[in-house]
Amino acid sequence: MNNRPVQDFYPEDYAHCYGCGRLNDHGYQIKSLWDGKDAICHFSPQPYHISVPGYTYGGLLASLIDCHAMATAAAARYQKEEREPGSEPKLRYVTASLKIDYRKPTPLGMLELRAHVEEQSERKSRVLVDVFADEQLTVHAEVVAVVIPESMRGDTE
Amino acid sequence: MNNRPVQDFYPEDYAHCYGCGRLNDHGYQIKSLWDGKDAICHFSPQPYHISVPGYTYGGLLASLIDCHAMATAAAARYQKEEREPGSEPKLRYVTASLKIDYRKPTPLGMLELRAHVEEQSERKSRVLVDVFADEQLTVHAEVVAVVIPESMRGDTE
Repeated sequence: MNNRPVQDFYPEDYAHCYGCGRLNDHGYQIKSLWDGKDAICHFSPQPYHISVPGYTYGGLLASLIDCHAMATAAAARYQKEEREPGSEPKLRYVTASLKIDYRKPTPLGMLELRAHVEEQSERKSRVLVDVFADEQLTVHAEVVAVVIPESMRGDTE
Repeated sequence: MNNRPVQDFYPEDYAHCYGCGRLNDHGYQIKSLWDGKDAICHFSPQPYHISVPGYTYGGLLASLIDCHAMATAAAARYQKEEREPGSEPKLRYVTASLKIDYRKPTPLGMLELRAHVEEQSERKSRVLVDVFADEQLTVHAEVVAVVIPESMRGDTE
């Protein structure tokens, strides 16, 4: 397991994301750790991150899944190219689609997300994400990540 | 168009949602207006609700879609039963699945969500949601809403 979260390698221009940007003080600052095969994310919702009392808000779960999947896509791609994470040219993915099945209500408390890349091409990756609460699988998602398009790139990229 | 948002009719126990709960001071407090066929939601993201600078965070869009679809399912169901919104027994839906296609980057600014129920059964509704920014369709979603299960109901329900 690499102890440095994938998001720490994102270029500064891409580090303002409300979900995972280390430079976004208002955001969730999600961190994903890559072990060479899977990416793991731990997140503990605030007491107010609820749908109904006691249960985690589905929109927050979608946010965690989204950012964690993008980090997984980037980490797997660096690995495929036999490059160090964060080496030039820097990789950043954005979300083309999210398909989320809420299989059980997700109680509040420490959550674990596990993700891996199921398919990878030059431009696109298909990432599967599972969310666990108390070691129970509560949510399963399939996410399509694409390399960030020119139109969304900042000036410094 | 009913001038009172659907969420104002939710029972108090179900009004704490981070996305649309009128009693959640930390949340987005999304409001959905029902016109008898479609539900409309307007939302203006904060400057920090971004993925990359200038563009709305996909996890926030997922949150808006999620709550707006649940409100649409409830409003359409009251109508089908020829009941006033909020009349007893009160209806509340939760999300079984979200399928979201991010077709274009969504710029910051006032967003409009339009949703309608495509299919409806006793327990389940399939809701289609479109997100517009500057009158351009940027995101399309299909959401399955189910009547809240017993296990998630509060004591007073």
